[in-house]
Amino acid sequence: MSETKDFNNILIVGLGLIGGSIAKKLKDISYSGKVFGLDKDIDIVKKANQDLLITNDNNIHIDSLDELLVIFCTPVLSFKEALELVLTLKPSDEVIFTDTLSTKSQILKILSEEFIAVKDKFVLSHPIAGSEKSGLNNSKKELFDNKVSVISPHETNDLKDIDRIIKFWNQLGSKTKILSANDHDVIFAKTSHLPHVISYALTQSLFSTFHEKTFEFSGGSLEDYTRIASSDPIMWKDILVSNKKNIINSIGDFEEGLKQLKHLIENQDEDGLVTYLEQIKVLRDNSIDKN
Amino acid sequence: MSETKDFNNILIVGLGLIGGSIAKKLKDISYSGKVFGLDKDIDIVKKANQDLLITNDNNIHIDSLDELLVIFCTPVLSFKEALELVLTLKPSDEVIFTDTLSTKSQILKILSEEFIAVKDKFVLSHPIAGSEKSGLNNSKKELFDNKVSVISPHETNDLKDIDRIIKFWNQLGSKTKILSANDHDVIFAKTSHLPHVISYALTQSLFSTFHEKTFEFSGGSLEDYTRIASSDPIMWKDILVSNKKNIINSIGDFEEGLKQLKHLIENQDEDGLVTYLEQIKVLRDNSIDKN
Repeated sequence: MSETKDFNNILIVGLGLIGGSIAKKLKDISYSGKVFGLDKDIDIVKKANQDLLITNDNNIHIDSLDELLVIFCTPVLSFKEALELVLTLKPSDEVIFTDTLSTKSQILKILSEEFIAVKDKFVLSHPIAGSEKSGLNNSKKELFDNKVSVISPHETNDLKDIDRIIKFWNQLGSKTKILSANDHDVIFAKTSHLPHVISYALTQSLFSTFHEKTFEFSGGSLEDYTRIASSDPIMWKDILVSNKKNIINSIGDFEEGLKQLKHLIENQDEDGLVTYLEQIKVLRDNSIDKN
Repeated sequence: MSETKDFNNILIVGLGLIGGSIAKKLKDISYSGKVFGLDKDIDIVKKANQDLLITNDNNIHIDSLDELLVIFCTPVLSFKEALELVLTLKPSDEVIFTDTLSTKSQILKILSEEFIAVKDKFVLSHPIAGSEKSGLNNSKKELFDNKVSVISPHETNDLKDIDRIIKFWNQLGSKTKILSANDHDVIFAKTSHLPHVISYALTQSLFSTFHEKTFEFSGGSLEDYTRIASSDPIMWKDILVSNKKNIINSIGDFEEGLKQLKHLIENQDEDGLVTYLEQIKVLRDNSIDKN
């Protein structure tokens, strides 16, 4: 049996879908270090404690915070407050920080401007896994299995710390890829944040016409297509605000593409439409096979 | 065991995903009438014949076309040519026509202007079932199970004929709902055609930046979200052209919604964003439960 302990103690900050899933996976692999958890909702802390996911049952008294990994799993704009709370608990010097947040540049900025000592020991990461269902109740141990966790090292990170964070995500079942914080935010503005924005706008546009009858005449794909519009509003408000510039750019690119297609439809340009649609189909089918 | 025969003969015109799935379901329920099939690709006709889905093995010689149901499963803009082909086969007077096409007004217009005798015996229908995978190879007998087939009767349809078409779709496993051709096209422009247009434009916008690496950093939802952009290009070109007016209107409504959301993001209006996102989540979650 392989050694599952890499940190004596793990502190999960935010016991929602992601934090809860980390705790469940650690329990599942019988992680031999101690696991603690914080949440602004004290009932969630108690529930996680009752389910034997975490050792503590409150947000205030946590002992043995030596040789520690702290993982932030809060909405992006709650990060600073959460970090300040963790620092009041006075973890020992032997601590590494990471996170699971969906935008990276804003976190790096906060660290650079206000928490420079923490920054050196903070290896940013983002597991590309989630669900439109939020909260501890919807968390599940297999959430990270075979998913990709993006690691975004910065210039003052220690290589050894980066390796430990990579190993940690591997233990949780995910592969890892490296992307700078800036590249991360540019890419995810397009591949994740833009689809959410579109899904919200589509759902809103349908509901303003059909109200509660929106899904009466859909064959299933509309449910899929609007699924992410049921995501957690606070989490997504924070993402949209914290990655504003990249998201606005992505919306602009998308609007251009939509205008092009609209133009082909308006002109009933059958040849142009077939070329456009076929090209997209070929590109998509080929790339899906490769990934 | 219930009687499965309602028509002596069934002629499926177009043996793609939909036509093939009808043939497979009829075989599965041991439909006791004869099933014939036509396709512009003669190899598909031969394949369907070999698989014992249809009785004929060519597009020219088909006997016993009395007491017949003809079902058109072609792309929308191939309908007229397909109907002309069927009429050259000289079906008897005891014939009812239906279809599975995704837009209805254009079909009704062709019938009204050029095939008035056929029109009286033509009950328009549209099973709300499909896949981004097209062709006979991807067809499956359970495609219509528990799905809704929309029936769009017109003013010169016979009530008895409408009932027979409803019963036919029930035999294939689907429920039925009634919508006028015009209402059908207005509604599906929003609930189906618009999501396809958006998916095409999104996929195009992503590929123009990331090329074959588009799915490298996505957690699965992007695959779902762009799935329908892999749909059959000819089928969708025909839908976009034949329902142009309604689709252009739907795109306009969507663009308005997108502009609103973009405005909230640009202004970093956190309260406005939470209200917007939360309202959509509540509406969607409640409607999904109801349908």
